[in-house]
Amino acid sequence: MNSRYWTLAKRPPPPWPDETIFALKEAPIPTPGPGQALTRTIYISLDPYQWGYKRRGEEPEGAPCHARTVSQVVESRIDGLAAGDFVFSTNGWAEYGLMGEGVPRPGYMIPRKLDPASGKISHAVGVLGMLGLTAYAGMVLQCEPKPGETAVVSAASGGVGQIAAQIARIEACRVAGVAGGAAKCAWLRDDLRLDGVIDYKAENDLAAAIRRACPDGIDLYFDNVGGSTLDAALLHLREGARVVLCGRISQVAADPPYGIRNLGQILSRRARMQGFQVFRYHERYEEARAWLAARHRDGQLCQRLHILDGLHHAPAALGMLFRGENTGKLVVRVSDTA
Amino acid sequence: MNSRYWTLAKRPPPPWPDETIFALKEAPIPTPGPGQALTRTIYISLDPYQWGYKRRGEEPEGAPCHARTVSQVVESRIDGLAAGDFVFSTNGWAEYGLMGEGVPRPGYMIPRKLDPASGKISHAVGVLGMLGLTAYAGMVLQCEPKPGETAVVSAASGGVGQIAAQIARIEACRVAGVAGGAAKCAWLRDDLRLDGVIDYKAENDLAAAIRRACPDGIDLYFDNVGGSTLDAALLHLREGARVVLCGRISQVAADPPYGIRNLGQILSRRARMQGFQVFRYHERYEEARAWLAARHRDGQLCQRLHILDGLHHAPAALGMLFRGENTGKLVVRVSDTA
Repeated sequence: MNSRYWTLAKRPPPPWPDETIFALKEAPIPTPGPGQALTRTIYISLDPYQWGYKRRGEEPEGAPCHARTVSQVVESRIDGLAAGDFVFSTNGWAEYGLMGEGVPRPGYMIPRKLDPASGKISHAVGVLGMLGLTAYAGMVLQCEPKPGETAVVSAASGGVGQIAAQIARIEACRVAGVAGGAAKCAWLRDDLRLDGVIDYKAENDLAAAIRRACPDGIDLYFDNVGGSTLDAALLHLREGARVVLCGRISQVAADPPYGIRNLGQILSRRARMQGFQVFRYHERYEEARAWLAARHRDGQLCQRLHILDGLHHAPAALGMLFRGENTGKLVVRVSDTA
Repeated sequence: MNSRYWTLAKRPPPPWPDETIFALKEAPIPTPGPGQALTRTIYISLDPYQWGYKRRGEEPEGAPCHARTVSQVVESRIDGLAAGDFVFSTNGWAEYGLMGEGVPRPGYMIPRKLDPASGKISHAVGVLGMLGLTAYAGMVLQCEPKPGETAVVSAASGGVGQIAAQIARIEACRVAGVAGGAAKCAWLRDDLRLDGVIDYKAENDLAAAIRRACPDGIDLYFDNVGGSTLDAALLHLREGARVVLCGRISQVAADPPYGIRNLGQILSRRARMQGFQVFRYHERYEEARAWLAARHRDGQLCQRLHILDGLHHAPAALGMLFRGENTGKLVVRVSDTA
């Protein structure tokens, strides 16, 4: 029997994800060797960083496109792992994948067995996975929120943004979220209970809109988009503000990049701006997972998935991310659980 | 007898210092009240921040233009201070000034008696004054240099820059300085013994010049100028780089400001960028002064003053700073010591 998977058909790819550069292939389902397990993909996580991998040519030619996945074990030659178990691994945009000894995987993405009793298995690519860890490390460890401070999160309805915004709310900050469109903004206000929302698609003057939402200025800015949104937020920094640059999805295809004019605010407000990557904090993953799991169990922290059913959606799904068409964490469901 | 002083004649001032906006006035030399002392100005420190005070209208109308000064006591009604003693104070662009009870002074600029045995009195507006403290706090406390790292300092022959660059050298970093003109660059290379120099006036492609001077990239960037120099330096940041924004003299009159295009490097290099103001570190001034004084005594840390003789130079001197015409820390000498 074969396993279908998506691979990159053209390179170098264009600046923006485009469905025509992918090809659907199939190959025999591999047989696990000693110390390996065969798994069937259930959820594929779609994340902006994956496009960076492709643009920089970091994926071996002809290999399945990289992605973090939740899978179920079909056949195991790994001690402690049995058929039917659920795992977090990196099968990529593929129906099946191997894990274990000698299977290449991106650094720090360590396959692990999941405990279905601790919550939905999809959490492993969401609130209890890299997204949650990213939001926790960026908001808690890097921004160091204090009660009563004002936090702003851009792309606040996206995978990382929704968790970062809720963490700031749980830490007793006043939180405003920036998102595109009335539906996303309503969800941020009504379901996530943010104090302010800014619909960047409905505003001609983003800086003025941020000022209205944050009349006393911004203490913490968690940025997922870069460009003009970052520039507008910089204008409103308060003394001692902390800015974490987590993503810059608006700038992926910008050539030349947007020119940031308000960087002088970092100087005059004695602010701190840091580039973020979650792997720097890997020694604190367990602390973060425990914090996130506890807040999720008691209902303070929720997660919205945007699920597309079927492997065939993967290329289009990546494009949706960059067009802001997803509401919540975007995943492709490849199969059901057994 | 009268004291002459410069005051602002027009307001608001133009974006760039211009001699025509100042007026030379005179008024009777004041008589010190109880708890006050009259001092005669010896050195006036010229610094870019003074132009910010004027542009923002922070000086009372008709008052002497603000500046830090080294002065000698003429008449004292302060315990422990006698005629002939030297003091650091804020007489401004004036021949005489009062210090002590009820005399207004900008925050944190605390008048103090100087010990001529510990070095030249001019050091109080240089290497052992705010400039040295600024360079120490920015380079040592904020950048945290490690031996073997590469440091770049912009405006490296200026008041703060020359000290920051030498501190990095003393901390066993590889140091490159950016300055304008062959004479400044020769001084940085031959006298300050920097490892690399970049003459921005002689380079069409500043980014390429920085790459030649720092082929392995930049760990620490101490920025005094902002704008295109900052943008070029960002391109070469190494993983985990630290950037301190101490000044942005290139942007004082820029309208609109230069648009920074390479901020994505802060994200991709997991770098940290911080706005700096020395007053945040006032609890560490004594530690910093002791460190600077010891390195200065043993000859590791030198200071070059650019001295203009006569109070009449003050307005033109401020313009020189912004045109980059000074080599070293710029002071106006108003009088000799008694």
